Amino acid sequence: MWYALKRLLIGQPLKSNELGEQKLNKTKALAILSSDALSSVAYGPEQILIVLITVSAVAFWYTIPIAVGVLILLLALILSYRQIIFAYPHGGGAYVVSKENLGVNAGLIAGGSLLVDYILTVAVSISAGTDAITSAFPHLHPYNVEIAVILVVFITILNLRGITESASILAYPVYLFILALIILIIVGVYHILMGNVAPDLHASLGTPVAGISLFLLLKAFASGSSALTGVEAISNAIPNFKDPGPNNASKTLMAMGLLLAILFSGIVYLAYYYGIAPKAQETVVSQIASQTFGRNVMYYFIQGTTAMILVLAANTGYSAFPLLAVNLAKDKFIARMFTIRGDRLGYSNGIIFLAVASILLIIAFKGKTEHLIPLYAVGVFIPFTLAQTGMLVKWIREKPKGWVLKLTVNLVGALISFTVMMIFFLTKFGQVWAVLIFLPLIVFIFHRIKKHYEAVGEQLRITTCEPTIPIEGNIMIVPVAGITHVVENSLNYAKSLSPDQIIAVYVAFDRDAEKQFEEKWQTWQPDVRLVTLHSQYRSIIHPLTKFIDTVEHKANEANFRVTVLIPQFIPKKSWHNILHNQSSLLIRAFLLYRRNLVVTTVPYHLKK
Amino acid sequence: MWYALKRLLIGQPLKSNELGEQKLNKTKALAILSSDALSSVAYGPEQILIVLITVSAVAFWYTIPIAVGVLILLLALILSYRQIIFAYPHGGGAYVVSKENLGVNAGLIAGGSLLVDYILTVAVSISAGTDAITSAFPHLHPYNVEIAVILVVFITILNLRGITESASILAYPVYLFILALIILIIVGVYHILMGNVAPDLHASLGTPVAGISLFLLLKAFASGSSALTGVEAISNAIPNFKDPGPNNASKTLMAMGLLLAILFSGIVYLAYYYGIAPKAQETVVSQIASQTFGRNVMYYFIQGTTAMILVLAANTGYSAFPLLAVNLAKDKFIARMFTIRGDRLGYSNGIIFLAVASILLIIAFKGKTEHLIPLYAVGVFIPFTLAQTGMLVKWIREKPKGWVLKLTVNLVGALISFTVMMIFFLTKFGQVWAVLIFLPLIVFIFHRIKKHYEAVGEQLRITTCEPTIPIEGNIMIVPVAGITHVVENSLNYAKSLSPDQIIAVYVAFDRDAEKQFEEKWQTWQPDVRLVTLHSQYRSIIHPLTKFIDTVEHKANEANFRVTVLIPQFIPKKSWHNILHNQSSLLIRAFLLYRRNLVVTTVPYHLKK
Repeated sequence: MWYALKRLLIGQPLKSNELGEQKLNKTKALAILSSDALSSVAYGPEQILIVLITVSAVAFWYTIPIAVGVLILLLALILSYRQIIFAYPHGGGAYVVSKENLGVNAGLIAGGSLLVDYILTVAVSISAGTDAITSAFPHLHPYNVEIAVILVVFITILNLRGITESASILAYPVYLFILALIILIIVGVYHILMGNVAPDLHASLGTPVAGISLFLLLKAFASGSSALTGVEAISNAIPNFKDPGPNNASKTLMAMGLLLAILFSGIVYLAYYYGIAPKAQETVVSQIASQTFGRNVMYYFIQGTTAMILVLAANTGYSAFPLLAVNLAKDKFIARMFTIRGDRLGYSNGIIFLAVASILLIIAFKGKTEHLIPLYAVGVFIPFTLAQTGMLVKWIREKPKGWVLKLTVNLVGALISFTVMMIFFLTKFGQVWAVLIFLPLIVFIFHRIKKHYEAVGEQLRITTCEPTIPIEGNIMIVPVAGITHVVENSLNYAKSLSPDQIIAVYVAFDRDAEKQFEEKWQTWQPDVRLVTLHSQYRSIIHPLTKFIDTVEHKANEANFRVTVLIPQFIPKKSWHNILHNQSSLLIRAFLLYRRNLVVTTVPYHLKK
Repeated sequence: MWYALKRLLIGQPLKSNELGEQKLNKTKALAILSSDALSSVAYGPEQILIVLITVSAVAFWYTIPIAVGVLILLLALILSYRQIIFAYPHGGGAYVVSKENLGVNAGLIAGGSLLVDYILTVAVSISAGTDAITSAFPHLHPYNVEIAVILVVFITILNLRGITESASILAYPVYLFILALIILIIVGVYHILMGNVAPDLHASLGTPVAGISLFLLLKAFASGSSALTGVEAISNAIPNFKDPGPNNASKTLMAMGLLLAILFSGIVYLAYYYGIAPKAQETVVSQIASQTFGRNVMYYFIQGTTAMILVLAANTGYSAFPLLAVNLAKDKFIARMFTIRGDRLGYSNGIIFLAVASILLIIAFKGKTEHLIPLYAVGVFIPFTLAQTGMLVKWIREKPKGWVLKLTVNLVGALISFTVMMIFFLTKFGQVWAVLIFLPLIVFIFHRIKKHYEAVGEQLRITTCEPTIPIEGNIMIVPVAGITHVVENSLNYAKSLSPDQIIAVYVAFDRDAEKQFEEKWQTWQPDVRLVTLHSQYRSIIHPLTKFIDTVEHKANEANFRVTVLIPQFIPKKSWHNILHNQSSLLIRAFLLYRRNLVVTTVPYHLKK
């Protein structure tokens, strides 16, 4: 039944050689990998205004130079990541670039930040999308957490089905959102040009503002930069692209950069010209839309696609997290299971891990993850800075043709990213301090895991010089619970392997039962040695393991191997299991972790 | 760590022969086994008034004849259960009596009702007690469910520690409650005798009441009878008493009956004389107490002990449920695990099952389990009726000395119980219909379980006439994942048992790896046959089981036994396990349920 359900939700398994067909063309890749970046237009401009309003509404004209700064940062990031795509065509982004150029620890800091960031992407985006939905349908508001969890599950299933099929479904809302915002911008600008908008709604550029400071402007700039979260996703996901991967990825990246720049500038310009102030109850985009169209069909179209793209932004995490995890797992820094492809060729373990982690975050924060946003942004700018610094080092070291220009691009990018990161630490330390504890910890864990894998590999490797201790004989211990077919079956099996000794062990709870059993055994299996143990505490395991310890000790001296044969009857229907004492399972689990003990389960299948 | 925590909470394990010391003397037994019955005085009289007020306050004088009816029912129940205690000194109460005299199905109906009822006892009493606490401390009100769950866990731990130690702690509140109510009644009656209470607060007995009907009076009587839930607990728990069990139990029962009668009549009389009407915000007991003492220290003493005894009433369930479960399990109607005594000699599985079930009920009903009360009451009167009918049959069948008197006692009891039960069904069908579905279902499940146990016993029993198929030889299959010490270790073990054939199986995901592995194997273990399987779907289990099926089929024809040897390396620290593919566990679980296949795990312990 579980199997049928899995097939229904996930689809039939795909063969390994069908991998090529699961790859993305540019149109789908743009939708899948840029929804995170593009959706941030919905809140990026607002973040700038929220900082500026602490001074006065006159200061709003500063959005224009700040937006120019953000666009320059965007340009630097896009150009830098374009260079990364060609320099590292197998993906990995900030992790690989930092590791190769700045050393392992820098790479691990970048990788660790990004891993956590993708989880935050999912939790934050889904919660924001849910808020958008429940704002439209207020009677759903009490079920915020439930709706968010359902959305995560839905996106998880789409991703487990495989990335191409997901793309087909997910592409529409992204393009509809782009369409909606472009219409909004065109109509808005048209109104301005036609003189339909009063020109006194905003202060002109350069109006002096009392109380403004460089610190505040930098803070506003940093807040606005949160609109750039997600631009690195494409460079991590090159292996998902159709061949030639780097070319297609680079073109997709440029297209995304262009769209992001157009949408961001358009929204900032309209917000400035309309003199819009941030409100708690209504988003900036909603205000622009209702001023431009009134509350008609177009307004709801814009709000609807905005809500959808916020939910889909979470999907970027689903594309990027498993691939980054594979890169880390291949280097043995995280568990190997992240490298295994599932039935539909997606990295299922990464997808499921991401889903569970983000659902836990959503439940823990009761769907109100807004105060995770600064943490999220700072977690993005750390790898940005590291990746660009890594590229700097690479150009200086390799000095390819035109390296001075390339160096300049990355230098500008690195400096701006670093500045944004530092501003986050300086202005929002109370919300981002956890990063300073968390990152060293995760790097430490990465190293521990790698050390463990290396130690295991070392111990498993066959080297010719090592002597193996020969096995001189076998002792088989059969714990018995009564005189039954199950026990008979196990004894017959033991005898067929002709070990040097078979010992049946019976644990008795009182003296009478003990004596009675010994007598019965004598007539039933006189040729098998029976040892009875007395248990005062009604425990089977403790006297049994004590006895086995003694046998093992003697056996080891003679290089004998000890096997514990556990007779187990298998009921016909699995629900019957709850009716039976699971002591054989317990015994097995307990014994397996003891040195040099082989555990054999001899099943006896019931017929009814 | 888990072990240390368990020792701290539960205490050191006790030896089986320390059982006697865990038994109850009469004083402790009265506290432990009667808190349920006694605590119902806190709400029983109120239930009568709630029905009568639907007519008018003048009708309140009917509480007196109704209370007399309840007292007669109480007397009948006490006398009847006293007879049951001596007739069935090993406990089991309604279940055993019904089963022996009315047949298995009647017994199962009684047993099933009681099992569920004890769960309801815990859920309802704890919730009511929590309400009492949070009424006193209103700022705790939002944490009702959490407090209730903590109380259940607390009582569970006390019971897992063992019943004597629990008794020491639980006895005080019960006796304090009795003391508090007796002081209340004495002072109240003293005030009345001294003429301090206006005599016109109540209508005199016999005042004509418009709109009163027999149906309504019966309904009020049935509601008042809910004060009698819990009187059967003592007869189920005779094995917990110090020797001589039946004598001690009988004396405890009589003492409880007397106390219950005094407290019930006292509260009803004071409520009548003071002319108290039921209020949503204040209980009847609280109204009497504040009229008698004012809101002074005595008032809070009464309210406090009432709250405590309500919580402790839940403990009756903890004493009765595991013992009833043992009786049912001994007859094979429920899982055998309920008969196992834990470290502290309590029936831990029953205790834990009860705790989990009642916590689930509390959470599902968000701590508001009031509408479970009618269900709870009807579930008590079904076994009451069955037990007394059973006793009737017994007297008629056995005709001992003085049987006519005994018969009369049980006849009266049976008739009243039956009437109360029918009134519940007639007047509160909307709340109790579930019983009519649930009881047949549970009886069906009981029979299914018994049938299964009997079928298993049948199949396991050794009968001389049965021929066993001799094992002619052994084939060992070793799934291998690489050329490592783990595999080497398993192969050496297999060789030491000299089976007829050893087959190593390798599952390859692509053709290159397959070929490479075959070559390496040839130089490493040329004497062990290697079979390589190709998996297109990246699954190890499917090709492996397909191959094993083929081998098994051939082996069965020759009466060969197939053993699958699973090489497994055991990391030094258990957290390392999450870093390794758990395929060996999966393979084992999957194979064990296949016919005639022995599964052996050969551990290879890592040293670092």
